[in-house]
Amino acid sequence: MTPDPVTAALPPVPLSVEGASVMHQMMRFRRPEWRALSTMVRSEIVREAVGALTATEHAVEGRQTAVYSLLGHKGDLMFVHFRRNFEELQSAELHLARLGLGDYLAPTGSYLSIVELGIYESTAKVYGALMERGLQPYTEQWKQEIEGTLDRHRQAMAPRLWPEIPATKYVCFYPMDRRRGETKNWYEESLSERQRMMEKHGAIGRRYAGEVRQIISGSTGLDDWEWGVDLFANDPAVFKRLIYEMRFDEVSAVYALFGPFHVGVRVAASDIGGIL
Amino acid sequence: MTPDPVTAALPPVPLSVEGASVMHQMMRFRRPEWRALSTMVRSEIVREAVGALTATEHAVEGRQTAVYSLLGHKGDLMFVHFRRNFEELQSAELHLARLGLGDYLAPTGSYLSIVELGIYESTAKVYGALMERGLQPYTEQWKQEIEGTLDRHRQAMAPRLWPEIPATKYVCFYPMDRRRGETKNWYEESLSERQRMMEKHGAIGRRYAGEVRQIISGSTGLDDWEWGVDLFANDPAVFKRLIYEMRFDEVSAVYALFGPFHVGVRVAASDIGGIL
Amino acid sequence: MTPDPVTAALPPVPLSVEGASVMHQMMRFRRPEWRALSTMVRSEIVREAVGALTATEHAVEGRQTAVYSLLGHKGDLMFVHFRRNFEELQSAELHLARLGLGDYLAPTGSYLSIVELGIYESTAKVYGALMERGLQPYTEQWKQEIEGTLDRHRQAMAPRLWPEIPATKYVCFYPMDRRRGETKNWYEESLSERQRMMEKHGAIGRRYAGEVRQIISGSTGLDDWEWGVDLFANDPAVFKRLIYEMRFDEVSAVYALFGPFHVGVRVAASDIGGIL
Amino acid sequence: MTPDPVTAALPPVPLSVEGASVMHQMMRFRRPEWRALSTMVRSEIVREAVGALTATEHAVEGRQTAVYSLLGHKGDLMFVHFRRNFEELQSAELHLARLGLGDYLAPTGSYLSIVELGIYESTAKVYGALMERGLQPYTEQWKQEIEGTLDRHRQAMAPRLWPEIPATKYVCFYPMDRRRGETKNWYEESLSERQRMMEKHGAIGRRYAGEVRQIISGSTGLDDWEWGVDLFANDPAVFKRLIYEMRFDEVSAVYALFGPFHVGVRVAASDIGGIL
Amino acid sequence: MTPDPVTAALPPVPLSVEGASVMHQMMRFRRPEWRALSTMVRSEIVREAVGALTATEHAVEGRQTAVYSLLGHKGDLMFVHFRRNFEELQSAELHLARLGLGDYLAPTGSYLSIVELGIYESTAKVYGALMERGLQPYTEQWKQEIEGTLDRHRQAMAPRLWPEIPATKYVCFYPMDRRRGETKNWYEESLSERQRMMEKHGAIGRRYAGEVRQIISGSTGLDDWEWGVDLFANDPAVFKRLIYEMRFDEVSAVYALFGPFHVGVRVAASDIGGIL
Repeated sequence: MTPDPVTAALPPVPLSVEGASVMHQMMRFRRPEWRALSTMVRSEIVREAVGALTATEHAVEGRQTAVYSLLGHKGDLMFVHFRRNFEELQSAELHLARLGLGDYLAPTGSYLSIVELGIYESTAKVYGALMERGLQPYTEQWKQEIEGTLDRHRQAMAPRLWPEIPATKYVCFYPMDRRRGETKNWYEESLSERQRMMEKHGAIGRRYAGEVRQIISGSTGLDDWEWGVDLFANDPAVFKRLIYEMRFDEVSAVYALFGPFHVGVRVAASDIGGIL
Repeated sequence: MTPDPVTAALPPVPLSVEGASVMHQMMRFRRPEWRALSTMVRSEIVREAVGALTATEHAVEGRQTAVYSLLGHKGDLMFVHFRRNFEELQSAELHLARLGLGDYLAPTGSYLSIVELGIYESTAKVYGALMERGLQPYTEQWKQEIEGTLDRHRQAMAPRLWPEIPATKYVCFYPMDRRRGETKNWYEESLSERQRMMEKHGAIGRRYAGEVRQIISGSTGLDDWEWGVDLFANDPAVFKRLIYEMRFDEVSAVYALFGPFHVGVRVAASDIGGIL
Repeated sequence: MTPDPVTAALPPVPLSVEGASVMHQMMRFRRPEWRALSTMVRSEIVREAVGALTATEHAVEGRQTAVYSLLGHKGDLMFVHFRRNFEELQSAELHLARLGLGDYLAPTGSYLSIVELGIYESTAKVYGALMERGLQPYTEQWKQEIEGTLDRHRQAMAPRLWPEIPATKYVCFYPMDRRRGETKNWYEESLSERQRMMEKHGAIGRRYAGEVRQIISGSTGLDDWEWGVDLFANDPAVFKRLIYEMRFDEVSAVYALFGPFHVGVRVAASDIGGIL
Repeated sequence: MTPDPVTAALPPVPLSVEGASVMHQMMRFRRPEWRALSTMVRSEIVREAVGALTATEHAVEGRQTAVYSLLGHKGDLMFVHFRRNFEELQSAELHLARLGLGDYLAPTGSYLSIVELGIYESTAKVYGALMERGLQPYTEQWKQEIEGTLDRHRQAMAPRLWPEIPATKYVCFYPMDRRRGETKNWYEESLSERQRMMEKHGAIGRRYAGEVRQIISGSTGLDDWEWGVDLFANDPAVFKRLIYEMRFDEVSAVYALFGPFHVGVRVAASDIGGIL
Repeated sequence: MTPDPVTAALPPVPLSVEGASVMHQMMRFRRPEWRALSTMVRSEIVREAVGALTATEHAVEGRQTAVYSLLGHKGDLMFVHFRRNFEELQSAELHLARLGLGDYLAPTGSYLSIVELGIYESTAKVYGALMERGLQPYTEQWKQEIEGTLDRHRQAMAPRLWPEIPATKYVCFYPMDRRRGETKNWYEESLSERQRMMEKHGAIGRRYAGEVRQIISGSTGLDDWEWGVDLFANDPAVFKRLIYEMRFDEVSAVYALFGPFHVGVRVAASDIGGIL
């Protein structure tokens, strides 16, 4: 099928809007060193950590830090920070490092990203409408029109751009890429093909809506994969079912490359002492 | 061969049922630090460890931890935990870490998964029967029918879903993926093609039934490979023969990607002191 | 399209000019060891570090060292040294290592490169003109003519070859390669094809000119990737938008391979104590 | 060439027989810690190690441990254990770890395998003969006939299945795989094609018979590569010449993937003190 | 072009001659531990190191050790040992490790190889002449003739086979492979094709003869890559220009795979204290 000239000239980049700045920190707990401390010193350190982590346990104006106990050797603890910007993420990292507890945590991984909502479904429509009005891509007027569209989406989607971390028992975090192989290359697919595939993909996710909540963050240019995915559920087997089902979907089967998977159990700030 | 329309519309995901939550922990033993302890302290630590590991050495309501002495540098000990759910796995990890012995163990690897039995052979039949009755995939009624089918399998297969760890002298554990290459992609194969290949694959395994026992666990979305495989045998050369023979089988030759292999010798909880 | 004989005989290497020698050093801060020091000793070490880093904070005759606080586990600090040559880079490394602070920094990464400006757009023109004058590639006269051309570019581009590190709040550094795949191989593309693709690529960058400044350095034969890219911006989300948009561009979509991404917040030399 | 129906039905797995269980252990020597010991303590540790290593220096009923001083950073020492079974390998590892010297050795690698002699040349003949007698693959009678054939080979090849470690000055150890690429896949080649290629490959090895001795061990299902190769020679340049010449041979050029290479100098047990 | 029968029957391996045994050792300097020593102890250690390194600083009968200060985190020092054989390399390693300085050096890498000069240009001619005389490859007479040819080359090329390490200010060391891809495979190319490509490749090197000196060593079967390349120059930018220009050459563009690059500044033995 030959694309009509207007379609062929559309910019290839799908529209998206951005929200919270996100840092995942995976940490090993230096247990032998910890156990060498006196009970009194440990109590004092726990008391301080409980205080600090309680203060950011619930989202306040888009600022929140959730703590998870990771399963397996990739780390003992995962701290998930949502903040207004990167400077606040830096402060959050530094604040954690400076706690007494910080001396007993050694980083094993991290991930830096920004909450992102892609709007594939309306991108071609918006671009097409602008072109039919005679606007050329990347002109000042084009940019203003696009910015206006994005602003409307930012307002409508604000709760999902600045989300509270779902209060589920389990989290599953992993980074991912779209494949750029020598013959199968996502970034060489047309906007409409990508839109079609993302739509089918989204349909699977929606079938799990009652069981899993998902937060997607973009990290192209920020970290070593293109996206970070956080899934939240009370039954961790659902992570397996959802991701396995998606793996048969064209966009994942052919184009998804996955980084390491991290599964953790939520820990209330007040219970942090219970897992040390 | 053009698939008939009904076949083409079948969901691509094979049916499967799930059982025990599984954690493999590979640990290095910090021998120099251990040897620096007094005999008395070491005896006390061993005594505590023997007590704790004896308590979970045999399966009680699906809870069990087996200990293996690993061969080679990937770790000195491997703990294989089977539990009812992930929260119990977290407790098992924490319990082990808090033993006196925990200070002399450093993690070198781990694997998180859920015992899984695929039922490829009847998947197409079940899907086809439902569609012939006019049910549409993913509708409420479809889901209920599927759930009913799975429940019958869960009951019939309960002993294999919640297995006791076989009491063989040797274990072989490795994770694996199905290949998603640019031209050879398991997840793009049709359900019937996959079913055909899995059937041939299963036939090889059955020829080794008297010599090897196998427990498959699924880990898509939980850990970095899609499946974990545990083989149990009294003659470790059988691991080599079985896996080598399978490597010529289409599903392995073309579609299997293997992670690191771990071979260990079972250690009775009461003998743990003998390998330290 | 058959290339005409003159074009076919052109040397394949695009012209470029070189400037500052560059070293990126990523460092972990050994915080527990640091916190074990007395306040007095720490003050003394900070005082010395502030002095040393202040002296090179601003570019003096092409010599400058900027300090960034990195986000995530790839390091706590990144030192970016611009110098006149490699010997000065070695001195800069040694000078930093010998500060009192040096004992509390452990290297986690580094990158060695030379600021480079490619002049794809005029390469074919220059080569063609020389050949039309009857000069043969690589003869003494050819080399003198080329050297003369490069000298004119070196003078015209001096401010970009010996740049001051932009005073933006954020930096994004990553290394990259051009793909040499079995079917898609940048180094097998013709000079004119590469020129065409680089031109389109540059156009995207120019649309971000007001928001991002970029310094490209070449590292073929010096470090493990072919180029290092530094982006400087006051809004880090721009890193994501720019690099994501570029990913759809042919030269990136098909031919770019990316190493690890590092994002940091600029730290004034006088504030170094504030992030320790 | 269409294979005739009998050939097509032959099992794809070549016959092979197995012998000694093999463990390679690569170790770093913790020299600074060692040098901190008093001369007296070091003498005592060396004395004990010499005694233990002398006891297994020469093959006794298939049990032997050879010591090599490795060149380069992959380790300082390599212990090569040949034993009757895996349980004895585990004991050998534990025995070494429990020597006083064990506290000054840190593992950097290892390899687990079983000496294996492939009998490609007669496999098709044996299979064909059985099928012409009307036996079906994998039936009890088939298995008995095969087992009988293997037993005859095991007896005839016993000295090579339970070899003494050649007393050459140098060893070269590396693991390897047969490629399973998307288009070039060893395990999809027919038995006769593989036999043909292995024959040509063997011919090269035979030309080096006077200069190099070779022990192949299989490790599919036991360690991370499919085979381990030990070469023994008095002139290490022969390792280079042999393996380079083989690299042009079809089976290596197309189908061989190589792991890390380790080259070591044999150390007499009585001289172990001389390299510490 | 169909090869004539004689050409087709030529052995595929190019002739080459070998010289010095080479070990590169990359070392991290344990600076914090070093700085904890008293000035007097440090002086004594430096004095001893200067003495030992001075003794081998200049080539004596093919024995030499050069010291470089590496740029970046891959190591602080690189020792390049040229010796008569591997046993002498082992001694050189051990000698260095046993210096007082040895306790403050930790290995970060190494490379083992043998200086090698390929003689592609005359290989086909020699092979062809022998075959025209009716000699069959690999017969005793064939081998004697080849050995005679190689001996003549060994004598003529002795200064390049047993080279003195060039006294340039900078070194660039990297290992490399020839690609064995599924479609592009160096080892499947004909001898004459490889000869043609190597000739073009050599022509580029010769254009840099005045600026760079190069020592190639072979490491197939000795270390993890097939060749080691040392470049020596007084202007390190030349490393970049030479290797970048070569990357467009067919043999590099298509068939070269590169390992890590190491760039160092030569340190006189007497100045070793100046970089600690």
